[in-house]
Amino acid sequence: MQTANAQAAGGHPPHGPAHARAADRQAAQPEVSFDTDPSRYRHWKLAVDDDTATLTMDVAEDGGLVPGYELKMNSYDLGVDIELYDAVQRLRFEHPEVRAVVLTSGKDRMFCAGANIPMLAQSSHAWKVNFCKFTNETRNGIEDATACSGQSYLAALNGTAAGGGYELALACDQILLVDDGSSAVALPEVPLLGVLPGTGGLTRLVDKRGVRRDRADVFATTAEGVKGAKAVDWRLVDEIAAARDFPAAVARLTQAAAARSGRPARAKGIGLTPLRRATDGDVTRYDHLRTEIDRRAGTATLVIAGPAATPASLAELHADGAASWPLAAARELDDAILRLRANEPAVGTWLLTTEGDPAAVAATGALLLAHRGDWLVNEIIQFWKRTLRRLDTTSRSLIALITPGSCFAGLLLEVALAADRQYMLDGIFTEDDDPAPPAVIRLDEFNTGLLPAGSGRSRLQIRFPGSEPEARAAAAAAGRDLTAADAARLGLVTEIPDDLDWADEIRLVVEERASFSPDALTGMEANFRFAGPETPETKIFGRLTAWQNWIFQRPNAAGPDGALRRYGTGQRADYDRRRV
Amino acid sequence: MQTANAQAAGGHPPHGPAHARAADRQAAQPEVSFDTDPSRYRHWKLAVDDDTATLTMDVAEDGGLVPGYELKMNSYDLGVDIELYDAVQRLRFEHPEVRAVVLTSGKDRMFCAGANIPMLAQSSHAWKVNFCKFTNETRNGIEDATACSGQSYLAALNGTAAGGGYELALACDQILLVDDGSSAVALPEVPLLGVLPGTGGLTRLVDKRGVRRDRADVFATTAEGVKGAKAVDWRLVDEIAAARDFPAAVARLTQAAAARSGRPARAKGIGLTPLRRATDGDVTRYDHLRTEIDRRAGTATLVIAGPAATPASLAELHADGAASWPLAAARELDDAILRLRANEPAVGTWLLTTEGDPAAVAATGALLLAHRGDWLVNEIIQFWKRTLRRLDTTSRSLIALITPGSCFAGLLLEVALAADRQYMLDGIFTEDDDPAPPAVIRLDEFNTGLLPAGSGRSRLQIRFPGSEPEARAAAAAAGRDLTAADAARLGLVTEIPDDLDWADEIRLVVEERASFSPDALTGMEANFRFAGPETPETKIFGRLTAWQNWIFQRPNAAGPDGALRRYGTGQRADYDRRRV
Repeated sequence: MQTANAQAAGGHPPHGPAHARAADRQAAQPEVSFDTDPSRYRHWKLAVDDDTATLTMDVAEDGGLVPGYELKMNSYDLGVDIELYDAVQRLRFEHPEVRAVVLTSGKDRMFCAGANIPMLAQSSHAWKVNFCKFTNETRNGIEDATACSGQSYLAALNGTAAGGGYELALACDQILLVDDGSSAVALPEVPLLGVLPGTGGLTRLVDKRGVRRDRADVFATTAEGVKGAKAVDWRLVDEIAAARDFPAAVARLTQAAAARSGRPARAKGIGLTPLRRATDGDVTRYDHLRTEIDRRAGTATLVIAGPAATPASLAELHADGAASWPLAAARELDDAILRLRANEPAVGTWLLTTEGDPAAVAATGALLLAHRGDWLVNEIIQFWKRTLRRLDTTSRSLIALITPGSCFAGLLLEVALAADRQYMLDGIFTEDDDPAPPAVIRLDEFNTGLLPAGSGRSRLQIRFPGSEPEARAAAAAAGRDLTAADAARLGLVTEIPDDLDWADEIRLVVEERASFSPDALTGMEANFRFAGPETPETKIFGRLTAWQNWIFQRPNAAGPDGALRRYGTGQRADYDRRRV
Repeated sequence: MQTANAQAAGGHPPHGPAHARAADRQAAQPEVSFDTDPSRYRHWKLAVDDDTATLTMDVAEDGGLVPGYELKMNSYDLGVDIELYDAVQRLRFEHPEVRAVVLTSGKDRMFCAGANIPMLAQSSHAWKVNFCKFTNETRNGIEDATACSGQSYLAALNGTAAGGGYELALACDQILLVDDGSSAVALPEVPLLGVLPGTGGLTRLVDKRGVRRDRADVFATTAEGVKGAKAVDWRLVDEIAAARDFPAAVARLTQAAAARSGRPARAKGIGLTPLRRATDGDVTRYDHLRTEIDRRAGTATLVIAGPAATPASLAELHADGAASWPLAAARELDDAILRLRANEPAVGTWLLTTEGDPAAVAATGALLLAHRGDWLVNEIIQFWKRTLRRLDTTSRSLIALITPGSCFAGLLLEVALAADRQYMLDGIFTEDDDPAPPAVIRLDEFNTGLLPAGSGRSRLQIRFPGSEPEARAAAAAAGRDLTAADAARLGLVTEIPDDLDWADEIRLVVEERASFSPDALTGMEANFRFAGPETPETKIFGRLTAWQNWIFQRPNAAGPDGALRRYGTGQRADYDRRRV
């Protein structure tokens, strides 16, 4: 593929030893931060004009997150995608007036060449997998903005969209391709790189866009892609437009999308102010969240603090903005998940805990539930939904610890239900100086359908896969304080050790988890967390990701003679032809 | 786990160099044959008593398919499973009177210890993957016998069922466990072996048996498993019975299952006579099927011959038995698929063709359709269904070639629709001495729902994932001879080159396919073939298998210090603790 080859060939001596060294180097992994805002973007421009935003990709070649590669041809690395994630989030919270988003390119004749190949070639297996996971979550977030928030994304392909570039377009609600005789959409991963399109392309081609199965096969094996009328005929894009008609087509499509949107007319956005985060050794403190790493045990304990008070009204919630507990806590949890995933791979077990008053969590939840038609409340709820889905796709063992002083109600109980197991103390810690009363948990609508997992099912339905009666009995207990005995009877917790057994039992669980193969745990957890029916989202994480992980390890892709490593060198990959 | 450890420790010096050598050896792969019958079984006993069959697993320790391991404790390898597959098939065709099948063990206190670990440790990655695929297909076949054929399987666990042993039980309709204070069900793969249960255990636990998600996590990380009343409470088994009550419980459960069955009362079975197969170099000939391997091109051409004549009546079909075309052709295709998969891994592209009279195929199909309530006709139809599903799960590129003289109608057209692409000649081969008339294809009920893929959808629905109208338009053309132009208009074929272009186009397709990474093709094809909704069956092949493939390659499992290689040595695996 001419365009993607140019991506690699542009900056490197294609055959020289410098490139080979770059390819062999497993670059030292930097600490990854997800802090950014539009004033700091290096790769994107965000412009808002009335009800339409334009997000322009214009990747800085020298702006890679890690040394060793240049981001030619609007190719991207994790750093580019961190900015995209930030922009998609801000559009939802800071711009309630925006009903349509145009995703386009600032480069000439190239929308986006996809993930940067020299970056992939030099990256460790774990880095590649984590990069793909985050980019997938961001693309799912784009679809979620259209489906749940009335912000419709138009991929305005003013040049070729290849690989991850076309997959980004596939995540948009509509795709418009310039008809200039050369610009194409393409998935060149299989023919050129010996890997799969890693951000949902295969799944969305058939399950979202309804491309005929044999044409999907032809398309995904045609490096140069498909352009013009054929791209429309094959459903790869929705429309094409000549270059001179392109702006008018963009305007027409965005206006139509905006007209369909239920976004409010004159609402005032909420600024997503910088998170306050202070790290002292292995302890990181946010306003409402603390993470503590125990490296010997291989655990991170996440302590989410409940709200100090409940906003008196919807107006107060709006006035509090990013400082309001439900939004601030979600942002902090999201950030903590992303940072722990990217920076602490050896911390294999996360202990999920809370501190506070369950009644306050329930009251704050009740305020949200009473005003769920409000755009900001809706955004907060959808953000919790997406953050909980990040937990579902996190390759760590998740254990909820429910002890006196905790506040596992509604929104926060859902964090416990996302865990692989739940341990709840039966009674009090008698040796505490001033023992807190026994913990209770409380269900509300956040647990019975408002925060569905990727499959569209509630975590109660996923918990009781074969038993609607059990899921219904649990749901019927909503609104009541449930003791450990109640919770055990309803099947909402795994074990309810008492004071005498608690410390030993939790220690054993943690030690046991740390003694198992991390890879086997990841595979097992992914199978149980995605029980039940499937959607494109669950397929992307449960199936596509697993295949890609496999392929990323195979010598045909990642070996010294594999396609990823030889890409851009002018040498063809040397494949072991045996099928597995 | 005591029992599974005994499996490995029994025959090998647990720490000695002999074991280490066995583990390091990649055993030379024998040619695998699937020919067997009950008189030749080494590992199973099949006994039929009125309407109940008993299939007793009694694995011969020295009966491994490959040298280098002993099949202790009713552990199994591919050879054991080939016999099981044969028995399950014969019960359906040779024993119409059988309504319930008891699966039990001939060993004391051990039902089955699962796949043999030293075998896995010494096997190549490809061998492990292919072994798991076949065992999964056999277990799906057991479920299919219950669902579609009225033969209900009871797992009568007269001892511990561990790993693949318990997964075999999970594939049965009901599970009865002896309550003797020690016999348990267990999935020790994650805690002991650093891999996943590879034959559907994780999926069936939650999606079939409805085990609560957190309990599934506890169970699948508890090496010693669960026994007694807790196993019932957790839904891991349906019933328990003390040893003295065990035979009575088996009788009660099988009688109840038999009473629910719709199998015929006094039907006469069809003997599955040995297949006639002659190999001459790279050509293998069956009565109705020929396979030709072109090693340079990396292709196998499968030529299925249509029926010479159509049985005059249902009675004639019964009288012809295993010699009747629809049964014989399915058996030959099944055998060819299995043999090519196991023995020809470097042959990456299969060209699927037919020879004969489409009207004869359609007429034979019409006879089957007219008598689909007949037990034998039903078995033949279900066998075609399963054989086509084997194509779906085959890790080879499948290209259907539709040329003059072919007979792609109904049953055989479904072979083409299972392919990744379909090429149909538009017109005739003008340079032939006596050119056959242009090819036609013809749809009938076999294409519109009678042979669903693993997802439960027809291959027409899978072909047109986003377009019910297109699937309906194609279905509406059933019964008509469709020319290449018709087929192209209906979207039933990928390309319709004419005589001038045909040879070049097919050559290019084959060369192109051979130039791609076999691993990337396998992943891509699996994603497109399993478009649309999912079932436990599609999850097993599309998701679980992909995760297991990944894990099977990871150093934590397969490396020199990994769990699979260290199993039975007394040394713990040394894990890289970083999560990916």
